[in-house]
Amino acid sequence: MITGVVSGNIFSTINHPFYDGKRLLIVDKTDLNGKRTGDYLIAVDSVDAGVGDPVLVVDEGNGARQIIGDPSAPIRSIIVGIIDSVDVSPF
Amino acid sequence: MITGVVSGNIFSTINHPFYDGKRLLIVDKTDLNGKRTGDYLIAVDSVDAGVGDPVLVVDEGNGARQIIGDPSAPIRSIIVGIIDSVDVSPF
Amino acid sequence: MITGVVSGNIFSTINHPFYDGKRLLIVDKTDLNGKRTGDYLIAVDSVDAGVGDPVLVVDEGNGARQIIGDPSAPIRSIIVGIIDSVDVSPF
Amino acid sequence: MITGVVSGNIFSTINHPFYDGKRLLIVDKTDLNGKRTGDYLIAVDSVDAGVGDPVLVVDEGNGARQIIGDPSAPIRSIIVGIIDSVDVSPF
Amino acid sequence: MITGVVSGNIFSTINHPFYDGKRLLIVDKTDLNGKRTGDYLIAVDSVDAGVGDPVLVVDEGNGARQIIGDPSAPIRSIIVGIIDSVDVSPF
Repeated sequence: MITGVVSGNIFSTINHPFYDGKRLLIVDKTDLNGKRTGDYLIAVDSVDAGVGDPVLVVDEGNGARQIIGDPSAPIRSIIVGIIDSVDVSPF
Repeated sequence: MITGVVSGNIFSTINHPFYDGKRLLIVDKTDLNGKRTGDYLIAVDSVDAGVGDPVLVVDEGNGARQIIGDPSAPIRSIIVGIIDSVDVSPF
Repeated sequence: MITGVVSGNIFSTINHPFYDGKRLLIVDKTDLNGKRTGDYLIAVDSVDAGVGDPVLVVDEGNGARQIIGDPSAPIRSIIVGIIDSVDVSPF
Repeated sequence: MITGVVSGNIFSTINHPFYDGKRLLIVDKTDLNGKRTGDYLIAVDSVDAGVGDPVLVVDEGNGARQIIGDPSAPIRSIIVGIIDSVDVSPF
Repeated sequence: MITGVVSGNIFSTINHPFYDGKRLLIVDKTDLNGKRTGDYLIAVDSVDAGVGDPVLVVDEGNGARQIIGDPSAPIRSIIVGIIDSVDVSPF
């Protein structure tokens, strides 16, 4: 899993029926302090995340398909959680 | 998924029957503003994309095989959509 | 497998029941001398690792699912061992 | 898929019977102009490629196993075509 | 596959029974001239490789599991051969 923040939406003419009615969100990757790394990915939402939300993303196809519950979903990245807090030891 | 723009075609003597009659497109990767990153990939088309089209590409083998509908397709990257617009929050 | 050291916890509102009651640990990647590389990952624990422990992490979805014993677990990274020692030849 | 040029052979004492009688080729990765990037990979041949041939390589395990027609082949990279031409738009 | 040289062993308290009695070797990645790149990986041995041996490593989970002959082995990297020679064309 990686951490990120939702920064926007992407709209596309997509042919595969899997994508009908699904939101494609742009997620800026962040470090553990929430600072953006400059990299991003495009993910399907599973937790009603909105712009500005800090999120956890599973970035692996088979794991993403398990969460969707559809073994044939053509996806790789899915938002699986909204981050409540990060607790890093100073040691 | 990643974003890119179709920049050309690649022609090859390919032995696997999966590739018969399929177009291999060169996709220059782009950032969310459509600026090319200097990296590229070779993808199979599924949406009749042409040179100059901004596209969404699934770059994971199992996801690509689901879109093709052929669990034995020897591919990794497939163009799944033509991008209509990208909406990024300023926050 | 990669080496790392547990540096903290991450708390998230997660919807998939797989995560109920599971700890998500932050693992700072290290080189073989235990020096942090600046990169990190978020892993599920399988060996009761705690903050400060040097650990081995399997960072591949199918391997991680085998360790959990759940072929549908939506995970990619799992802590599989606590490192006792590293023995590198000077040659 | 990625593009490359065959630059040599690698000989190894390999235990898995899959490799008996199979050639392991060194492929220097190239950009679309055929310029070597400095990176390389080791691939199994499926098209009788020889040193100096520009080639297309599938660099994903499941796709490579489909081409070999052996779902248990322990490979990741396979040469699937010899490149005839690359046609890149100037736009 | 990638090339490397065995540089040491790693010892760990591992819970998954797959690892019982298996050696975990540290492999320094090398270029085709045997020069170390500064990167490394941790691999399971399948060819009785020792410290200093130049080796071929399959670095993909499904391929590694095929060599072990155990579809549920939680591994990603496995040493599949000891390199006899590398023959690179000067062209």
